[in-house]
Amino acid sequence: MALRREEILESARVLFNRWGTAHVSANRIASDAGVSPGNLYYWFPNKAAIIRALFAEWSAASTGVALAGLADSGDPGDALREFVHAAERQPAATARYAFFPRELFALLHADPELAAAYRRNFEAGVDAITTIAQAGIDAGLLIDPAPRANLRDVVVTAWIASECAPAFLEVIAEEPASGRGSGLAGAILRSLLTDEGAKALDERKGARGHEHRGIRAG
Amino acid sequence: MALRREEILESARVLFNRWGTAHVSANRIASDAGVSPGNLYYWFPNKAAIIRALFAEWSAASTGVALAGLADSGDPGDALREFVHAAERQPAATARYAFFPRELFALLHADPELAAAYRRNFEAGVDAITTIAQAGIDAGLLIDPAPRANLRDVVVTAWIASECAPAFLEVIAEEPASGRGSGLAGAILRSLLTDEGAKALDERKGARGHEHRGIRAG
Repeated sequence: MALRREEILESARVLFNRWGTAHVSANRIASDAGVSPGNLYYWFPNKAAIIRALFAEWSAASTGVALAGLADSGDPGDALREFVHAAERQPAATARYAFFPRELFALLHADPELAAAYRRNFEAGVDAITTIAQAGIDAGLLIDPAPRANLRDVVVTAWIASECAPAFLEVIAEEPASGRGSGLAGAILRSLLTDEGAKALDERKGARGHEHRGIRAG
Repeated sequence: MALRREEILESARVLFNRWGTAHVSANRIASDAGVSPGNLYYWFPNKAAIIRALFAEWSAASTGVALAGLADSGDPGDALREFVHAAERQPAATARYAFFPRELFALLHADPELAAAYRRNFEAGVDAITTIAQAGIDAGLLIDPAPRANLRDVVVTAWIASECAPAFLEVIAEEPASGRGSGLAGAILRSLLTDEGAKALDERKGARGHEHRGIRAG
């Protein structure tokens, strides 16, 4: 039976991405998922509940990016590399849930429960990234923005840009100048790398696919 | 008669900010502006035309920020200071049109003509800011993000964050850690200031209200 729940979520995700949440009814989701409306309501009391469940999936992927860098907290260079590695995977994860960045403000505005969940996710992510960045600064891998700018403000700005960029670039049909889909999300972080930090990340690049062999930067 | 046009736009702006564009009819705008529906249609064929006219007002304020720094292009320090000064006024201008950042993606998605106008505005703004920043880099006032990051990507990221931050912070009820409303928009730029650049901006701060007396940084 739990398979039905997955089928409903998958149909909803595809329909929301194609038509927008406002133009998809619960009955249409049930129909596309091949279940009866009654079966859909067994799993989800309304469309908002389906949106929240999809948000939980997307959120797990997003927060995972921030927390990936904390998993190996022993070495600041490793933490920075894990974070960048996870951030580079993020656009693909977000593309699966393209309707979220497109409708982010409207969805959060319309559903306080979703907004509360998003805010918890945001706070945890920003805290984790700030911790990783501060460790990188202390290790001489990143330029310290203080006292010119508040580190958390820089992280919040990068977070907002990262969340909003997919929908923004889509709607104005702009490609990042770097030609990399993940170029924007990483641009802020990369712009603050010291020579030593850049070297650490470059060595990480050379080690792609060999993460577990323990190749580490200076 | 042109006064009527202004009254219609002002009523529409207030109603859109309060209820969102989707929940405000042209008749309601006419009623609040104290004009007949026929008179409203004399000025604007439909609601989309009203939204486009308000966008032109907001856009003039936004692009003005980017172009302010180019007006006095003789000195990179002056250009940087003028830009930061204009950017600090930007949140107040955007607050007048709060519905735009909230509904940005939906509005641009729904109206190709509006999207084309926004894109022209975005391209001109990003080009101007990139020029200002490159001059600042060449003058030793800003850290060069190249080759670690593409300067235009950094500018695009800061632009997206600046456009999306008001609606984002509103919906998650977050205050910038710096406590300044303009803290986020400036965080990226400020984080890249060199000591000399920070000094130039600080001297500018001391000269606030005395711009025309020609106090200039080192």
